[in-house]
Amino acid sequence: MSIACENPEFRLLGDERGSLIAVEAHKDIPFAIARVYYIFGTKEGVERGFHAHKELKQVAVAVRGSCIMKLDDGSEQQDILMNDPAKSVYIAPMVWHEMREFSEDCVLLVFADQAYDESDYIRNYTQFLEAIEQQGKNT
Amino acid sequence: MSIACENPEFRLLGDERGSLIAVEAHKDIPFAIARVYYIFGTKEGVERGFHAHKELKQVAVAVRGSCIMKLDDGSEQQDILMNDPAKSVYIAPMVWHEMREFSEDCVLLVFADQAYDESDYIRNYTQFLEAIEQQGKNT
Repeated sequence: MSIACENPEFRLLGDERGSLIAVEAHKDIPFAIARVYYIFGTKEGVERGFHAHKELKQVAVAVRGSCIMKLDDGSEQQDILMNDPAKSVYIAPMVWHEMREFSEDCVLLVFADQAYDESDYIRNYTQFLEAIEQQGKNT
Repeated sequence: MSIACENPEFRLLGDERGSLIAVEAHKDIPFAIARVYYIFGTKEGVERGFHAHKELKQVAVAVRGSCIMKLDDGSEQQDILMNDPAKSVYIAPMVWHEMREFSEDCVLLVFADQAYDESDYIRNYTQFLEAIEQQGKNT
Protein backbone atom coordinates (compact mmCIF):
# COMPACT_ATOMS: atom_id res chain seq x y z
CA MET A 1 0.00 0.00 0.00
CA SER A 2 1.00 3.59 -0.48
CA ILE A 3 1.52 5.67 2.62
CA ALA A 4 -0.04 8.60 0.75
CA CYS A 5 -3.09 8.17 2.95
CA GLU A 6 -4.84 11.37 2.07
CA ASN A 7 -8.47 11.42 3.05
CA PRO A 8 -10.96 12.56 0.45
CA GLU A 9 -11.03 16.36 0.46
CA PHE A 10 -13.38 17.87 3.03
CA ARG A 11 -16.29 19.71 1.47
CA LEU A 12 -15.82 23.47 1.65
CA LEU A 13 -19.07 25.25 2.46
CA GLY A 14 -18.16 28.71 1.25
CA ASP A 15 -20.52 31.58 0.65
CA GLU A 16 -20.45 35.38 0.73
CA ARG A 17 -19.80 35.27 4.48
CA GLY A 18 -16.64 33.17 4.30
CA SER A 19 -15.81 29.50 4.71
CA LEU A 20 -16.99 26.61 6.85
CA ILE A 21 -15.91 22.98 6.86
CA ALA A 22 -17.86 20.37 8.80
CA VAL A 23 -16.66 16.83 9.36
CA GLU A 24 -18.58 13.98 10.90
CA ALA A 25 -17.33 10.96 12.81
CA HIS A 26 -17.51 7.65 10.91
CA LYS A 27 -17.86 9.58 7.67
CA ASP A 28 -15.35 12.31 6.83
CA ILE A 29 -13.32 11.08 9.80
CA PRO A 30 -13.18 7.28 9.46
CA PHE A 31 -13.64 6.54 13.16
CA ALA A 32 -15.31 7.71 16.38
CA ILE A 33 -13.66 10.92 17.57
CA ALA A 34 -12.37 10.25 21.08
CA ARG A 35 -9.83 13.06 21.18
CA VAL A 36 -9.01 16.22 19.25
CA TYR A 37 -5.85 18.22 19.64
CA TYR A 38 -4.45 21.32 18.05
CA ILE A 39 -0.85 22.41 17.73
CA PHE A 40 -0.22 26.14 17.47
CA GLY A 41 2.32 28.82 18.31
CA THR A 42 5.07 26.51 17.10
CA LYS A 43 8.44 28.19 17.33
CA GLU A 44 10.54 28.77 14.23
CA GLY A 45 12.65 25.79 13.23
CA VAL A 46 10.86 23.38 15.57
CA GLU A 47 10.13 19.85 14.43
CA ARG A 48 7.48 17.74 16.18
CA GLY A 49 6.18 14.20 16.11
CA PHE A 50 9.04 11.69 15.72
CA HIS A 51 6.93 8.75 16.79
CA ALA A 52 4.51 6.13 15.56
CA HIS A 53 1.47 4.70 17.28
CA LYS A 54 0.87 1.00 17.65
CA GLU A 55 -2.90 1.29 17.32
CA LEU A 56 -4.01 4.92 17.28
CA LYS A 57 -5.66 6.21 14.11
CA GLN A 58 -5.46 9.92 13.36
CA VAL A 59 -6.56 12.45 10.77
CA ALA A 60 -4.64 15.75 10.57
CA VAL A 61 -5.52 19.00 8.83
CA ALA A 62 -3.86 22.44 8.85
CA VAL A 63 -6.87 24.66 9.50
CA ARG A 64 -4.61 27.73 9.29
CA GLY A 65 -1.13 28.26 7.89
CA SER A 66 1.07 25.42 6.78
CA CYS A 67 3.56 22.73 7.74
CA ILE A 68 5.14 19.69 6.20
CA MET A 69 4.09 16.24 7.39
CA LYS A 70 6.51 13.42 6.75
CA LEU A 71 5.03 9.93 6.82
CA ASP A 72 7.19 6.81 6.89
CA ASP A 73 5.89 3.24 6.95
CA GLY A 74 9.33 1.72 7.36
CA SER A 75 9.89 1.15 3.66
CA GLU A 76 8.59 4.30 2.01
CA GLN A 77 8.72 7.96 3.02
CA GLN A 78 6.57 10.83 1.85
CA ASP A 79 6.46 14.56 2.53
CA ILE A 80 3.01 16.13 2.41
CA LEU A 81 2.50 19.88 2.34
CA MET A 82 -0.35 20.71 4.69
CA ASN A 83 -1.62 24.11 3.63
CA ASP A 84 -5.33 23.71 2.95
CA PRO A 85 -8.16 23.52 5.54
CA ALA A 86 -9.92 21.05 3.22
CA LYS A 87 -6.96 18.70 2.80
CA SER A 88 -6.52 16.08 5.48
CA VAL A 89 -4.08 13.26 5.96
CA TYR A 90 -4.86 9.91 7.53
CA ILE A 91 -2.09 8.74 9.82
CA ALA A 92 -2.50 4.99 10.14
CA PRO A 93 -1.16 2.97 13.06
CA MET A 94 2.51 2.04 12.64
CA VAL A 95 3.31 5.05 10.49
CA TRP A 96 6.22 7.14 11.76
CA HIS A 97 5.41 10.82 11.42
CA GLU A 98 7.35 14.05 11.72
CA MET A 99 6.15 17.61 11.20
CA ARG A 100 8.39 20.53 10.30
CA GLU A 101 8.43 23.98 8.68
CA PHE A 102 5.44 25.22 10.65
CA SER A 103 4.39 28.68 9.52
CA GLU A 104 4.11 31.19 12.37
CA ASP A 105 0.29 31.06 12.08
CA CYS A 106 -0.06 27.30 11.62
CA VAL A 107 -2.85 25.56 13.53
CA LEU A 108 -2.63 21.82 12.97
CA LEU A 109 -5.85 20.09 14.02
CA VAL A 110 -5.74 16.35 14.68
CA PHE A 111 -8.60 13.91 15.26
CA ALA A 112 -7.79 10.68 17.11
CA ASP A 113 -9.81 7.54 17.78
CA GLN A 114 -8.49 6.92 21.30
CA ALA A 115 -7.75 8.84 24.46
CA TYR A 116 -4.09 9.56 25.22
CA ASP A 117 -2.10 6.45 26.06
CA GLU A 118 1.68 6.75 26.43
CA SER A 119 2.08 2.97 26.04
CA ASP A 120 0.76 3.25 22.48
CA TYR A 121 3.74 5.38 21.39
CA ILE A 122 6.91 4.14 19.72
CA ARG A 123 9.38 6.99 20.11
CA ASN A 124 12.55 5.29 18.96
CA TYR A 125 13.01 4.92 15.20
CA THR A 126 15.11 1.75 15.47
CA GLN A 127 12.42 0.16 17.65
CA PHE A 128 9.84 1.29 15.09
CA LEU A 129 11.71 -0.50 12.29
CA GLU A 130 12.05 -3.62 14.46
CA ALA A 131 8.31 -3.55 15.20
CA ILE A 132 7.54 -3.22 11.48
CA GLU A 133 9.84 -6.16 10.74
CA GLN A 134 8.21 -8.22 13.49
CA GLN A 135 4.77 -7.33 12.13
CA GLY A 136 5.87 -8.56 8.66
CA LYS A 137 6.93 -11.91 10.12
CA ASN A 138 3.58 -12.33 11.87
CA THR A 139 1.41 -11.73 8.80
CA MET B 1 -29.11 29.79 35.46
CA SER B 2 -26.52 32.05 33.93
CA ILE B 3 -25.94 31.72 30.23
CA ALA B 4 -22.24 32.34 30.88
CA CYS B 5 -21.68 28.71 30.08
CA GLU B 6 -17.93 28.76 29.83
CA ASN B 7 -16.32 25.38 29.99
CA PRO B 8 -13.39 24.95 32.35
CA GLU B 9 -10.26 26.20 30.60
CA PHE B 10 -8.56 23.64 28.42
CA ARG B 11 -5.15 22.62 29.68
CA LEU B 12 -2.37 24.24 27.66
CA LEU B 13 0.51 21.84 27.07
CA GLY B 14 3.20 24.33 26.22
CA ASP B 15 6.92 23.72 26.07
CA GLU B 16 9.96 25.06 24.22
CA ARG B 17 8.48 23.81 20.94
CA GLY B 18 5.20 25.74 21.17
CA SER B 19 1.68 24.95 22.30
CA LEU B 20 -0.67 21.99 22.17
CA ILE B 21 -4.17 21.60 23.54
CA ALA B 22 -5.86 18.20 23.63
CA VAL B 23 -9.51 17.68 24.47
CA GLU B 24 -11.29 14.40 25.02
CA ALA B 25 -14.92 13.50 24.45
CA HIS B 26 -16.99 13.05 27.64
CA LYS B 27 -14.34 14.94 29.57
CA ASP B 28 -13.15 18.34 28.32
CA ILE B 29 -16.01 18.18 25.83
CA PRO B 30 -19.10 17.12 27.83
CA PHE B 31 -20.51 14.78 25.17
CA ALA B 32 -19.61 12.34 22.38
CA ILE B 33 -18.14 14.27 19.44
CA ALA B 34 -20.32 13.47 16.44
CA ARG B 35 -19.33 16.47 14.35
CA VAL B 36 -16.65 19.13 14.29
CA TYR B 37 -16.73 22.24 12.16
CA TYR B 38 -14.48 25.20 11.68
CA ILE B 39 -15.32 28.65 10.45
CA PHE B 40 -12.54 30.60 8.77
CA GLY B 41 -11.87 33.22 6.11
CA THR B 42 -14.81 35.20 7.43
CA LYS B 43 -15.22 38.43 5.51
CA GLU B 44 -14.94 41.78 7.31
CA GLY B 45 -18.17 42.92 8.93
CA VAL B 46 -19.88 39.54 8.55
CA GLU B 47 -22.08 38.23 11.35
CA ARG B 48 -22.94 34.52 11.58
CA GLY B 49 -25.14 32.27 13.65
CA PHE B 50 -28.51 33.89 14.34
CA HIS B 51 -30.14 30.65 15.36
CA ALA B 52 -30.71 28.32 18.29
CA HIS B 53 -30.81 24.56 18.36
CA LYS B 54 -33.63 22.59 19.91
CA GLU B 55 -31.38 19.78 21.10
CA LEU B 56 -27.85 20.17 19.77
CA LYS B 57 -25.08 20.72 22.30
CA GLN B 58 -21.95 22.54 21.19
CA VAL B 59 -18.59 23.72 22.48
CA ALA B 60 -16.84 26.54 20.60
CA VAL B 61 -13.24 27.76 20.80
CA ALA B 62 -11.29 30.31 18.74
CA VAL B 63 -8.13 28.34 18.00
CA ARG B 64 -6.73 31.35 16.14
CA GLY B 65 -7.67 35.01 16.09
CA SER B 66 -10.79 36.33 17.73
CA CYS B 67 -14.51 36.98 17.46
CA ILE B 68 -17.37 37.91 19.74
CA MET B 69 -19.97 35.29 20.61
CA LYS B 70 -23.34 36.58 21.79
CA LEU B 71 -25.44 34.12 23.77
CA ASP B 72 -29.11 34.75 24.53
CA ASP B 73 -31.35 32.40 26.50
CA GLY B 74 -34.45 34.49 25.90
CA SER B 75 -34.19 36.46 29.11
CA GLU B 76 -30.49 37.28 29.41
CA GLN B 77 -27.86 38.19 26.84
CA GLN B 78 -24.11 37.97 27.08
CA ASP B 79 -21.19 38.89 24.82
CA ILE B 80 -18.13 36.68 25.15
CA LEU B 81 -14.80 37.60 23.64
CA MET B 82 -13.33 34.48 22.07
CA ASN B 83 -9.61 35.12 21.74
CA ASP B 84 -7.86 32.29 23.52
CA PRO B 85 -7.29 28.71 22.23
CA ALA B 86 -7.78 27.47 25.81
CA LYS B 87 -11.08 29.25 26.44
CA SER B 88 -14.18 27.46 25.26
CA VAL B 89 -17.85 28.25 25.48
CA TYR B 90 -20.62 25.71 25.92
CA ILE B 91 -23.63 26.51 23.76
CA ALA B 92 -26.56 24.72 25.34
CA PRO B 93 -29.72 23.76 23.45
CA MET B 94 -32.22 26.63 23.21
CA VAL B 95 -29.57 29.32 23.40
CA TRP B 96 -29.69 31.81 20.56
CA HIS B 97 -26.18 32.61 19.36
CA GLU B 98 -24.62 35.18 17.09
CA MET B 99 -20.97 35.70 16.19
CA ARG B 100 -19.47 38.97 14.99
CA GLU B 101 -16.23 40.93 14.75
CA PHE B 102 -14.25 38.03 13.36
CA SER B 103 -10.59 38.92 13.00
CA GLU B 104 -9.19 38.24 9.54
CA ASP B 105 -7.28 35.23 10.86
CA CYS B 106 -10.03 33.83 13.10
CA VAL B 107 -10.56 30.07 13.08
CA LEU B 108 -13.57 29.20 15.22
CA LEU B 109 -13.64 25.50 16.03
CA VAL B 110 -16.93 23.95 17.17
CA PHE B 111 -17.62 20.51 18.60
CA ALA B 112 -21.18 19.17 18.30
CA ASP B 113 -22.91 16.13 19.76
CA GLN B 114 -25.06 15.36 16.71
CA ALA B 115 -24.76 15.18 12.95
CA TYR B 116 -26.23 18.06 10.97
CA ASP B 117 -30.02 18.20 11.14
CA GLU B 118 -31.80 21.22 9.65
CA SER B 119 -34.99 20.40 11.60
CA ASP B 120 -33.08 21.07 14.84
CA TYR B 121 -32.55 24.75 13.93
CA ILE B 122 -34.71 27.67 15.05
CA ARG B 123 -33.73 30.48 12.70
CA ASN B 124 -36.43 33.02 13.58
CA TYR B 125 -35.92 35.00 16.78
CA THR B 126 -39.65 35.45 17.44
CA GLN B 127 -40.18 31.72 17.09
CA PHE B 128 -37.23 31.20 19.43
CA LEU B 129 -38.85 33.38 22.11
CA GLU B 130 -42.16 31.55 21.62
CA ALA B 131 -40.43 28.19 22.00
CA ILE B 132 -38.72 29.41 25.20
CA GLU B 133 -42.09 30.58 26.57
CA GLN B 134 -43.70 27.26 25.63
CA GLN B 135 -40.83 25.42 27.32
CA GLY B 136 -41.42 27.48 30.50
CA LYS B 137 -45.07 26.49 30.55
CA ASN B 138 -44.21 22.81 30.21
CA THR B 139 -41.79 22.70 33.12
